[in-house]
Amino acid sequence: MAAHTETFAVATRGRGAYEITEQVVEIVGRSGVQTGVATVFVAHTSASLVIFENADPTAREDLETFLGRLVPDGASWFTHDLEGPDDMPSHIRMALTRTSENIPVHHGRPCLGAWQGIYLLEHRRTPHRRSIAVAVVGEK
Amino acid sequence: MAAHTETFAVATRGRGAYEITEQVVEIVGRSGVQTGVATVFVAHTSASLVIFENADPTAREDLETFLGRLVPDGASWFTHDLEGPDDMPSHIRMALTRTSENIPVHHGRPCLGAWQGIYLLEHRRTPHRRSIAVAVVGEK
Amino acid sequence: MAAHTETFAVATRGRGAYEITEQVVEIVGRSGVQTGVATVFVAHTSASLVIFENADPTAREDLETFLGRLVPDGASWFTHDLEGPDDMPSHIRMALTRTSENIPVHHGRPCLGAWQGIYLLEHRRTPHRRSIAVAVVGEK
Repeated sequence: MAAHTETFAVATRGRGAYEITEQVVEIVGRSGVQTGVATVFVAHTSASLVIFENADPTAREDLETFLGRLVPDGASWFTHDLEGPDDMPSHIRMALTRTSENIPVHHGRPCLGAWQGIYLLEHRRTPHRRSIAVAVVGEK
Repeated sequence: MAAHTETFAVATRGRGAYEITEQVVEIVGRSGVQTGVATVFVAHTSASLVIFENADPTAREDLETFLGRLVPDGASWFTHDLEGPDDMPSHIRMALTRTSENIPVHHGRPCLGAWQGIYLLEHRRTPHRRSIAVAVVGEK
Repeated sequence: MAAHTETFAVATRGRGAYEITEQVVEIVGRSGVQTGVATVFVAHTSASLVIFENADPTAREDLETFLGRLVPDGASWFTHDLEGPDDMPSHIRMALTRTSENIPVHHGRPCLGAWQGIYLLEHRRTPHRRSIAVAVVGEK
């Protein structure tokens, strides 16, 4: 049995989805764990994670459109607005998606489906540096 | 300490909630793990998981009504529509619920509350075969 | 390697966010695990968890306002209404947020970001006693 943790950063260019599947697959490989679970965690409250359709970028664009319609920037009822009109929607978008994704590991790889990619969702409009932690626990 | 992974399939009959609690309890039992954590993972982007009220089916029906009102099939602003009017809403419903559920294991059982059932949510209208992976990690 | 589970209760005073970060940090400490993962789980279907902005309470108030606008108490289309107008919205708010939060453990602490707190969200209007289970698995 073994437990391995590793962190990496993603430099975002503002709002949008950034794929991190390869980084996670590589960390699981370096952990040496063959059977177990990988936890991917984003250490921020205005960015989040989601496992999403990885084939057609229009699916990610429609997710963005949906979130923008559901939680419009600068909504009149926000009271938390000191950090700009896109700050409070970022926290809400984060709460509606995920802070961690957890994936069983089998034969040394996260067992993602064929169309599943792991994405960091940047919810702020401006570029940010986002820190992602991965823990892998299981049998070598 | 031990780590155990197992997969099973659920044949859905189209959109709706399919309980998988028993399958998960059995896999945790077969793992031999007494103390640890179970991760349940659905390997698809148009189906998801949710731990939900298991007593009254009307609660699940109202969840379905809510999701249908929030993300209507065939919304005019979808650009990802090649796979039909229920495809893009499926991805969004998935992103708003969960791809994995993680449950502490105590005395060899997932410690679900009295009214908690684990459900696969099929978001497509047509029947699908969905693959679910479970990882159990902990002390025997 | 070790696995540790522990439960604690939170007495809520009705709808709102209750911080449980300290309880989780203490349990991770007592587990002795230095490297691994902590799973926090709420054993209820009308309460949920979320990792959220911990600095400014107005952010949590705006989240509450958002959820109240998205899923109004006593909506006309609810069929599951025997337990009161705030029961069905509680289940939906729970499904849209999280039943578990999973956090990598590094140097014996959950590696939360600077502005991340772990919150129990009570979705019912009346006080409840909520049970939270934590599992910590990894290397001592």
